[in-house]
Amino acid sequence: MNNIKDLDKKYVLPTYARADVEFVSGNNAIVVDANGKKYIDFASGIAVCSVGHANKRVNDAICKQLSNITHTSNLYYIAPQAKAAQKIVEASGYDMKCFFGNSGAEANEGAIKIARKFGEKDGELKRYKVITLQHSFHGRTITTVKATGQEKMHNYFGPYPDGFVYADNIDHVASLVDDHTCAVMIELVQGEGGVQPLDRDSVQKLAKFLKEKNVLLIIDEVQTGIYRTGKFLASNYYDIKPDVVTLAKGLGGGVPIGVVMTTLKDVFGAGDHGSTFGGNFLSTTAACEVVDILNEMNESGELQKGIDYFDSELEKFYNAHRDIFTSKVGIGMMCGLRVKDGDTLTKIISNAREEGVIVLKAGRDTLRLLPALTITKEEIDEGFTSLNRTISSL
Amino acid sequence: MNNIKDLDKKYVLPTYARADVEFVSGNNAIVVDANGKKYIDFASGIAVCSVGHANKRVNDAICKQLSNITHTSNLYYIAPQAKAAQKIVEASGYDMKCFFGNSGAEANEGAIKIARKFGEKDGELKRYKVITLQHSFHGRTITTVKATGQEKMHNYFGPYPDGFVYADNIDHVASLVDDHTCAVMIELVQGEGGVQPLDRDSVQKLAKFLKEKNVLLIIDEVQTGIYRTGKFLASNYYDIKPDVVTLAKGLGGGVPIGVVMTTLKDVFGAGDHGSTFGGNFLSTTAACEVVDILNEMNESGELQKGIDYFDSELEKFYNAHRDIFTSKVGIGMMCGLRVKDGDTLTKIISNAREEGVIVLKAGRDTLRLLPALTITKEEIDEGFTSLNRTISSL
Ligand SMILES: Cc1ncc(COP(=O)(O)O)c(C=O)c1O
Ligand SMILES: Cc1ncc(COP(=O)(O)O)c(C=O)c1O
Repeated sequence: MNNIKDLDKKYVLPTYARADVEFVSGNNAIVVDANGKKYIDFASGIAVCSVGHANKRVNDAICKQLSNITHTSNLYYIAPQAKAAQKIVEASGYDMKCFFGNSGAEANEGAIKIARKFGEKDGELKRYKVITLQHSFHGRTITTVKATGQEKMHNYFGPYPDGFVYADNIDHVASLVDDHTCAVMIELVQGEGGVQPLDRDSVQKLAKFLKEKNVLLIIDEVQTGIYRTGKFLASNYYDIKPDVVTLAKGLGGGVPIGVVMTTLKDVFGAGDHGSTFGGNFLSTTAACEVVDILNEMNESGELQKGIDYFDSELEKFYNAHRDIFTSKVGIGMMCGLRVKDGDTLTKIISNAREEGVIVLKAGRDTLRLLPALTITKEEIDEGFTSLNRTISSL
Repeated sequence: MNNIKDLDKKYVLPTYARADVEFVSGNNAIVVDANGKKYIDFASGIAVCSVGHANKRVNDAICKQLSNITHTSNLYYIAPQAKAAQKIVEASGYDMKCFFGNSGAEANEGAIKIARKFGEKDGELKRYKVITLQHSFHGRTITTVKATGQEKMHNYFGPYPDGFVYADNIDHVASLVDDHTCAVMIELVQGEGGVQPLDRDSVQKLAKFLKEKNVLLIIDEVQTGIYRTGKFLASNYYDIKPDVVTLAKGLGGGVPIGVVMTTLKDVFGAGDHGSTFGGNFLSTTAACEVVDILNEMNESGELQKGIDYFDSELEKFYNAHRDIFTSKVGIGMMCGLRVKDGDTLTKIISNAREEGVIVLKAGRDTLRLLPALTITKEEIDEGFTSLNRTISSL
């Protein structure tokens, strides 16, 4: 561990405020650090390890694929890419086509490119403005930083591209739509912003309004997607029909992958967009297996059972500590508790690690929980036992 | 195959003009399609499969790692990330630190962010302009599309970020530097642009000039890096000391990964940049193994022997067909032949596939060859035999 810490400090740019722990192995919702200490993982690599750590089905599928071929260029057909696209589209329930990149930021770049090209084709007037929400998070490329509605992030790296407009909240969006607006991009549950689900009626009203105005609705499901909220997409939960959806995190079970999917099947022609690695044999084989596993869990009812149990234990925990937590937020396995103040939250997160459970922060004051969707009853119990000890230790 | 083609057309956005072939397996420089037909692969997934297809050492390292853990967030130390950073920095010979993303485009976004932040910190005047070269290619995000010096690509997706300036050629760069310039970003051998190495004296002169002006030199080694030219970096070959280097393609042997490395070790603070997947256990374990393999081949002289043999066979092939090819270009295993016209080139590429060898296009009229660095004498011989048959069949 000390050796790794030294190497990291010597050779890695200091962009992360790393906690003082190095994990070396895992199994479903358990992770083990370099000292052999076990933890319950309620963070899942920030919603990435959707089917748990060291998932045997995913690993077997990957290793079998690697023994054949890992990567070719997109100049040729790639069978698991086509299959992953089919699985994703079918699970979504939308009539869409996919483009594969390698991250959430790349997926959102694709979405913005789709919106801008749509805005150009449509009539004489170029429409290019994209409205996003305050407290949103859309990625770390220069354009997705600018799309992110947090003023404090728009520093250093400019000039940023023009055309991003921020709404204070969902009900404020419609009033910002003008003749230059091509799209609205939102998370239905802001992941980094505080795990607060948007109001369902407001979202449906906005979706209807945008359809009338011929403005695209882009849903950033990078964090909410792949059954995180209990449905394949959070937009299924909201019962809306978006024009563009982006996915990443949970889709590859830990393998880097991003997807932008859209009903605008002809918006891109050959050469309009591309990626060297995007959609290769490795990442799309992993995605196929992850989606299969979660589809099966969904159909058997096991997924909902896990969500219900997690939620009931979270509710108990919340009710036992009302002096510390002010509200319970989220949907499905994307949930959290508002903490009375930020200092207490910081302390909870580091004490929780001492007590053997990994939890996350969101926004200023939200304790965020993103367990593996495959987490067992025993793992949930152990995690909350550790969290209760954490609170006692404050 | 037909099934996959149909799925692809139904579910994947048509951004690629795919050739009518689906590969299903590979072994070093051999790939096999869905009909069982064998090909010699002189393309390597566009320089990605640097250590060949189905490399056993890389696959064993990956599968062992997956059985432990694939991914955690960057909030914690990640041992193979720290080790990969060390290996990359040491092999480069530069005194740098690394940031890990997931693609060449993401690596270049990081480079531009570094340059812009450097330009802001340095004195009162904000420096933000980045000079790039005509015919360059830097990626598909909105900002890297704009950084790409091909006017025809700057369509649809605007407004693009301001501050990119294009030089007609390397000797034209210095005259474009002004008080607002923070960086110059170049490929030393333009991959997509035609495989023409820049003139060594001109590059060294420019590097010296930029050092005097305190303007950063960013070398995009996404395609040239990881021993593609025979040295770990093309900039080693040019004997310059860049301020920022970007890597991707060959680094992970097929696993999505991108790196930006810089001598500006303190340019980023915590929170200035980030990536969910970037630098995770999977991608950096692959990178460690790839770099180890190629370091060993380099030290034993095997790498140079392969390059020399490939070059001598390419020279023979070129000399045998001077009626078709007008010049031989490139360095190391990043090489090509200028074809007398674009139509002939298109025909060569598709006929080559018929004859059992996979080759690429670059720019308007360059036949581009990017074989695995581990390609054997037998594979080289078979590839050129097929290429000779291809020319006879024209
Ligand atoms: C909603 C949302 N969009 C986009 C991103 C960016 O994803 P990535 O880090 O994979 O680029 C994130 C990452 O946290 C996210 O939560
Ligand atoms: C020199 C160079 N830079 C950047 C890129 C973009 O890399 P990626 O496709 O991984 O985003 C490429 C891809 O071909 C490239 O050749």
